[in-house]
Amino acid sequence: MANTNKQILFASRPNPNASLENFKVVTDAPTPEESSLQDGQVLLRLVYVSVDPYMRGRMNEGKSYFPGFEIGKPISGGTVAEVISSKNSVYSTGEYVVAFLPWQLVQIVSADQAKSFVKIPNEVKSLASYFIGSCGMPGLSALLPIEHIGAPKAGEVAFVSGAAGAVGSTAGQIFKILGLKVYGSAGSDDKVKLLKDLGFDGAWNYNTTNLDKVLSEAVPEGIDIYFDNVGGQTLEILLNHMKKYGRIIACGAISQYQKGGWENAYGIRNIFTVVSKSLKLQGFIVTDWAPEFAAGTAKLVGWVREGKLKVTETVREGFENLPSAFVGLLAGENQGKMVVKI
Amino acid sequence: MANTNKQILFASRPNPNASLENFKVVTDAPTPEESSLQDGQVLLRLVYVSVDPYMRGRMNEGKSYFPGFEIGKPISGGTVAEVISSKNSVYSTGEYVVAFLPWQLVQIVSADQAKSFVKIPNEVKSLASYFIGSCGMPGLSALLPIEHIGAPKAGEVAFVSGAAGAVGSTAGQIFKILGLKVYGSAGSDDKVKLLKDLGFDGAWNYNTTNLDKVLSEAVPEGIDIYFDNVGGQTLEILLNHMKKYGRIIACGAISQYQKGGWENAYGIRNIFTVVSKSLKLQGFIVTDWAPEFAAGTAKLVGWVREGKLKVTETVREGFENLPSAFVGLLAGENQGKMVVKI
Repeated sequence: MANTNKQILFASRPNPNASLENFKVVTDAPTPEESSLQDGQVLLRLVYVSVDPYMRGRMNEGKSYFPGFEIGKPISGGTVAEVISSKNSVYSTGEYVVAFLPWQLVQIVSADQAKSFVKIPNEVKSLASYFIGSCGMPGLSALLPIEHIGAPKAGEVAFVSGAAGAVGSTAGQIFKILGLKVYGSAGSDDKVKLLKDLGFDGAWNYNTTNLDKVLSEAVPEGIDIYFDNVGGQTLEILLNHMKKYGRIIACGAISQYQKGGWENAYGIRNIFTVVSKSLKLQGFIVTDWAPEFAAGTAKLVGWVREGKLKVTETVREGFENLPSAFVGLLAGENQGKMVVKI
Repeated sequence: MANTNKQILFASRPNPNASLENFKVVTDAPTPEESSLQDGQVLLRLVYVSVDPYMRGRMNEGKSYFPGFEIGKPISGGTVAEVISSKNSVYSTGEYVVAFLPWQLVQIVSADQAKSFVKIPNEVKSLASYFIGSCGMPGLSALLPIEHIGAPKAGEVAFVSGAAGAVGSTAGQIFKILGLKVYGSAGSDDKVKLLKDLGFDGAWNYNTTNLDKVLSEAVPEGIDIYFDNVGGQTLEILLNHMKKYGRIIACGAISQYQKGGWENAYGIRNIFTVVSKSLKLQGFIVTDWAPEFAAGTAKLVGWVREGKLKVTETVREGFENLPSAFVGLLAGENQGKMVVKI
């Protein structure tokens, strides 16, 4: 057995910012051999690996709804992998699958594990990375809460924060497809330009703009649906701009993930507007709606093929660059989906 | 026309605490005479007047969903009034009605105004005050959001803050009627005793108890439904004790009403738990469900008559004592519904 396999291990917990030190790149792990495949098993090689904001929570100690990373064990997450060899009748050599896997270049998976994989049809293999982006979990994390929590009506007004990210850029476009006006915020002028290119009716750089002021001027009628990816002060500002009966889709709070615990997070002082305006603020985890993944994915793929949903990606290359891609994601270095091509 | 009528005017805005100075008691206002009644009009005399926490918001400058009080004009709110004389075929002398009226002892109302009144059946006239309490708006403010937002299931665990107030004491008992476990907090040992007498499974004085600690010990399984009347730090603590898929009924935030604006209110630092536990936090105004008032009232009256719903009242006497009753309510001097008998 050659020792040329690669892994990325969880080396230490962030304190509080995730950094390269928290990861250990291993380049001399044992490489599983094709000849050792048992019945039902599949030999996979990673093709694309997803880095996502929610993974920051998995680096913390204590309970979480996703399993936490274990020190000394590989990081795990969404990937696209190629079937190198298969003793499983469902999968054939050369096929691509979407799979939740450890960060290990080459690996053998059991028949049981393989049951959870989603095949990428051969005719859209060239779009494989989309299946961990706008047509995968991030896309479903935009679509399904918009449908279930947002209950949008054409003509309403939506606002998306973190709007240039994988979820945000998809959410904003979905609102447009559904006939809403959509505004958004992001952390750089380049990202704001991207949002305008994607069809947002207005977009602002929260680092250089007084969001409260521009919303008063540009959206005096107020916001019906706020898709919140960032939490913190942006949530506080948006609460003040919601219309009566507004809905807030609480998807994430990337501005607060590296504060070192909730005690240090930004305190939302105007939560009473939830009462005074009959608002609904609802959180979700996309797996709540697993029965709708197939239909949701089909809808997203359809919109992409029709040209209604544009996919933006920031592609980094090389397995060893996974840690820097993840750290960069948390620092906002991505436009659209941050993905690592192996 | 005799000038012996009484009014209570809104004299000045609180800064930030409401005090007696904010009210002006007038004892020489003109008394409308029976002989001046026009067709369709009704002559009314106040019997009971409701003081409610939401009225504090009406004393502030600026927009609110209830009309703000106007300086120099009478305070207005929920009342029970007796028909003294009537040229309206719907109402007869001696009947009691529930009516939203200015704080003026005797008054003539138009046929249009009279349309919004709810008659109190003669056989329950002795319970008239209940119709501005557990069987009126406060009772409906407990029942309807429990049904619509809380979606309670027997066996679940509920927590009520401000639990000894008109809404809270009703909400807690409704949870018990529906088969839930119910816990609560209030601001004095006497109130805690009341809650235990009302059947709460556990209750604590938040002034002398570490609520976070006692919840960890007494309710380790966590809370499914939190009925929030107080906001502030209690909301923050409860967010940390919610179960996955928990629902928070955001009814009020009496701990924050006298802070002098949202900028000075307590900042909720762990709002991210809404995401991490897939929580729903929803506010309401009871008038959202006006079509259900009749059925809701009937349900509440039924439970009272069956002895399932106990009504607790703090009754003050005398029209002139309305301001002190209201100020006392905001200071937590009430057990159950604070009402002024005229």
